[in-house]
Amino acid sequence: MIAKALKADGAQVQEITAKAGVFNQEEVDCVREIWDDYVNLGAEECGYNFIVERNGDQVLGFACYGPRDLTDGVFDLYWIAVHPDARRDGVGKRLLTASEEAVRALGGRMLIAETSGTPLYEPTRKFYLGMGYSAEAVIKDFYSDGDDLAIFVKKV
Amino acid sequence: MIAKALKADGAQVQEITAKAGVFNQEEVDCVREIWDDYVNLGAEECGYNFIVERNGDQVLGFACYGPRDLTDGVFDLYWIAVHPDARRDGVGKRLLTASEEAVRALGGRMLIAETSGTPLYEPTRKFYLGMGYSAEAVIKDFYSDGDDLAIFVKKV
Repeated sequence: MIAKALKADGAQVQEITAKAGVFNQEEVDCVREIWDDYVNLGAEECGYNFIVERNGDQVLGFACYGPRDLTDGVFDLYWIAVHPDARRDGVGKRLLTASEEAVRALGGRMLIAETSGTPLYEPTRKFYLGMGYSAEAVIKDFYSDGDDLAIFVKKV
Repeated sequence: MIAKALKADGAQVQEITAKAGVFNQEEVDCVREIWDDYVNLGAEECGYNFIVERNGDQVLGFACYGPRDLTDGVFDLYWIAVHPDARRDGVGKRLLTASEEAVRALGGRMLIAETSGTPLYEPTRKFYLGMGYSAEAVIKDFYSDGDDLAIFVKKV
């Protein structure tokens, strides 16, 4: 079942980020920081919305999205990650679909997912393409020399 | 003379933003908010650096830049604006060049300037191209339907 993330989900959200295998320590720390903002300030105030898919008490995956400043209805998909034990079961697809529906409900018209152009992220890029996103733009050497930014866009 | 912006420059920075003729009220308010952060928290803490070109007590223009989270040396040029009475005098060029030098001094390797694809911003886009930026990417309908995001990039 997909639902708004609750404070009690925090430890599992952090664990999933750490175990995802594609995020470095700075990124893991970043998820912790925005999670704290989400719990302490609330989604509307901090601009970060977290949703989770749960099976009983177990969190299978999470997504985080929010509005981009100074735009009319553009939302960023900041994070999406699935527990390694729950992969190939459609969790990611359901989380992304639920994010798109939530964005639409908040008046959004576009969801943007940014990821890396390296081979490690090829499954991620294929995932977005398979979910109807267009590979709209690339900024070469963005993350570091040889590591491009790939920008995926979907009108929701 | 180009220098770090001082608290006393605040009123003139706000006036220049309002008079620039290309920023809407939300954008003018945004400059005020990040200016307040810059003055109250300092550039390092808030991530926004402001520089100005002054002629005596008069502020002719300003630029604002800062590091992008989760990147290795990417900086955003958030704002650059010149007082209408000081245009065509190289103020914008000097502010952008000084921003690039400051980014380099902070360990940055790339400066990104985002602007709109509408005719109103054609002089802005020409300005970046003339300063050696490449028109790296476009996200269609980003700001609103028919109003694209144009991303200009320079390796500094």
